[in-house]
Amino acid sequence: MQSFATLSKLFENHFNKRHFPNSPSTLYDAAQYILKIGGKRVRPVSVLMGHELFNEFDEDALHVATAIELFHNFSLIHDDIMDKAPLRRGWETVHTKYGESTALLAGDVMLVAAYEEINKIKSNKLSEILTLYSRTAKEVCEGQQLDMDFEKQLNVSMEEYLEMITLKTSVLLAASLQLGAILGGAGESNQKYLYDFGKNIGIAFQIQDDYLDAFGDPEKFGKQVGGDILSNKKTFLLIHALSATNPTQRKELELLLEGNEPDKVARVVAIYKECKVDQWAHTLKEKYYEMALKNLHEIAVQDARKQELISLAKYLLQRDS
Amino acid sequence: MQSFATLSKLFENHFNKRHFPNSPSTLYDAAQYILKIGGKRVRPVSVLMGHELFNEFDEDALHVATAIELFHNFSLIHDDIMDKAPLRRGWETVHTKYGESTALLAGDVMLVAAYEEINKIKSNKLSEILTLYSRTAKEVCEGQQLDMDFEKQLNVSMEEYLEMITLKTSVLLAASLQLGAILGGAGESNQKYLYDFGKNIGIAFQIQDDYLDAFGDPEKFGKQVGGDILSNKKTFLLIHALSATNPTQRKELELLLEGNEPDKVARVVAIYKECKVDQWAHTLKEKYYEMALKNLHEIAVQDARKQELISLAKYLLQRDS
Repeated sequence: MQSFATLSKLFENHFNKRHFPNSPSTLYDAAQYILKIGGKRVRPVSVLMGHELFNEFDEDALHVATAIELFHNFSLIHDDIMDKAPLRRGWETVHTKYGESTALLAGDVMLVAAYEEINKIKSNKLSEILTLYSRTAKEVCEGQQLDMDFEKQLNVSMEEYLEMITLKTSVLLAASLQLGAILGGAGESNQKYLYDFGKNIGIAFQIQDDYLDAFGDPEKFGKQVGGDILSNKKTFLLIHALSATNPTQRKELELLLEGNEPDKVARVVAIYKECKVDQWAHTLKEKYYEMALKNLHEIAVQDARKQELISLAKYLLQRDS
Repeated sequence: MQSFATLSKLFENHFNKRHFPNSPSTLYDAAQYILKIGGKRVRPVSVLMGHELFNEFDEDALHVATAIELFHNFSLIHDDIMDKAPLRRGWETVHTKYGESTALLAGDVMLVAAYEEINKIKSNKLSEILTLYSRTAKEVCEGQQLDMDFEKQLNVSMEEYLEMITLKTSVLLAASLQLGAILGGAGESNQKYLYDFGKNIGIAFQIQDDYLDAFGDPEKFGKQVGGDILSNKKTFLLIHALSATNPTQRKELELLLEGNEPDKVARVVAIYKECKVDQWAHTLKEKYYEMALKNLHEIAVQDARKQELISLAKYLLQRDS
C-alpha cells in the first residue's frame, strides 16, 4: 500500500479542479469556495487505502473518494448554517459569505454532485456502493439531529452520547474505508472488520478531541481551548464528570454550568482533574485504539499491507508508538 | 396505457407508508410530515405513464416514481425555508412546525432517501437513470438560485425568465416522463421527444399559473389572487407588460411597483388588460401546448397509447378540448 502522504498527493491532484459548471455562478462559486478551504482529506484518502488493502490502485477508487469529500463538505456547509458558525478554519463559512439560502442550495448541489461521482465508476459494484454510501449519509444527518436534540436535553447518558458521536463523526470514516474495500473486491467479513477499525479510530479521535478542548496545549490545539466548556457542550468529559463527582463537586460543577464566571474554564478543568477525568479519557481512548488494532488484525491479508493503516491511526491519535 | 386516475391510485397505494425509520423521531417525523400533506402527484404518475407508453407496468417504475416524489418534497422543504413560507396547502411548513435546522436536515435525508429508492430497481439501467436524475436535481437547484437572483435584479429578460422557470419547474416533469421511458426500454429519440413534451407542458402550465394569479377566478384559484403582483414577482405577465406598455403606462406600472397602494392589484391588472397581456399569455400558452402535442406526435408508438398523455396535458392546462 502506498503511504498516506503519497495517496494524499494523488487525491489532491485529482480533486483540485472546479467540480461545478460556471453558471449560475451565484450558486456554483459558493459551492466551489468551500472546497478550496481544504483540510487533511483523511476520509477520501481512507477510501484509497481501503481499496489498496485488497487491490491495486484504480480510477474507480478516486471517484468514490471524491464523492466522500464532496459529501463531507456538503455536511460542513449545512452544519455551519445550523450552528450559525461565522468561521471555518479561519475562513468565512459559506453562509456568511454568500447568504443562507445560497449556502443551503450549494450544499444540496454538492450532495447531488457526490452521487454523480459515484455514478462514474466502471465497477459492477455500483449498487453495493450506493447502498452503503446512502445509509451512511442518512446516519450522518441523524447524528447532527441528535447533537441538536442533546443541546436541549438536560441529561444525556454516555450511551446516548456515544451513539450520537459515532453517527456524526465515525461512520463516515468507517464507510470510506469499507467503500474502498468493496471496490477492491474484499469479502464481507473483511469489509466489516475494516469498517469497525475505522469506527473505533473515529471514536478514539473524538475522545481525544474532547480531551484536548480541556487539557490541550493552546499553542498546538487548533481551536479555542475550553470552547466546549464555555458553551456547556456535552462531551465525553462532562458526561463522565457528572457521574464521577462527589455531591459537593457535582453541585459546584452544576453551578459553574449555569453561570458564566470569568474563571469558568479553569474551575471546570480543576474539577475534571480532581475526579481524574483526564486519566479516564486517556484510558478510554486507548481502549478504542486497541479495539481498532484488533479489528485490523482480523482482516485476512498480510500484515505488511496493513502498516500504512496503523500509521494513519497513530497519526490521527497523536501517538509516537 | 392505464388512466391517470388508475395509475395515481396505484402510486398512492405504494407511496402511502412511512418512508423513514422511527428513530430519531425528531428528524424523521419532520420528514414524514410533509409527505402526508399530499398533492396531485403529477410527477410520479408521469414516471408510470412514461413507462407504460413503451412497456407493461413493473415495480421498477414505482421505485423511480417514489424517488421523484421524494425529490419533489425535498425541494419543497428547502424552498419553503428560503422563501420563509409559513404555510403550504394550508398546512404549516416543515420549518414552521419543526424549526429551520430540522427542516434543513429533513430535506437532506429526503434527498438521500430518493437515491435509495432509485437503487432498488432491478433493471440494468441504474447508471442511465442516475445520470438523468442527478442532472435534473442540479437543474432544479439552479432554477431556485436564479429565481432568488432575479428578485434582486431590476431587469429580467423574457429569455432569462423562461430559462429560470424551465429549470425550476419544467425539467422535473420532463425528466419524470423520460425516466419512465428509459426503464420502459425506449430509444434515445423517443426519450427526447417525451422529455420535450413534458418540458413544453410544464412551461405552458407555468404561463397559466402566472395568468391565473392576475386573471383567475378567486373561487377556483388555490392561492391569493394578485399575490405575484403584491410581491412584485417577475412573471411572464409583468416581463411582457414592461415591454408592451406605452411610455405613460410604463411610468404608471413602475410607480405601482414601487409603492403599495391599496388598489395596486386592480390597477396593475387594468394596465395588463390595456396592453392585452391576457391575450398574449393565452396565445403563448397555446403555442407551448401545440409544441408539446407535436413532440408527442413524433414518438414512434401507436397513437392509441398516447391518449392518456394528451388527457393529462388537457387536465393540467384546464382544456375542455
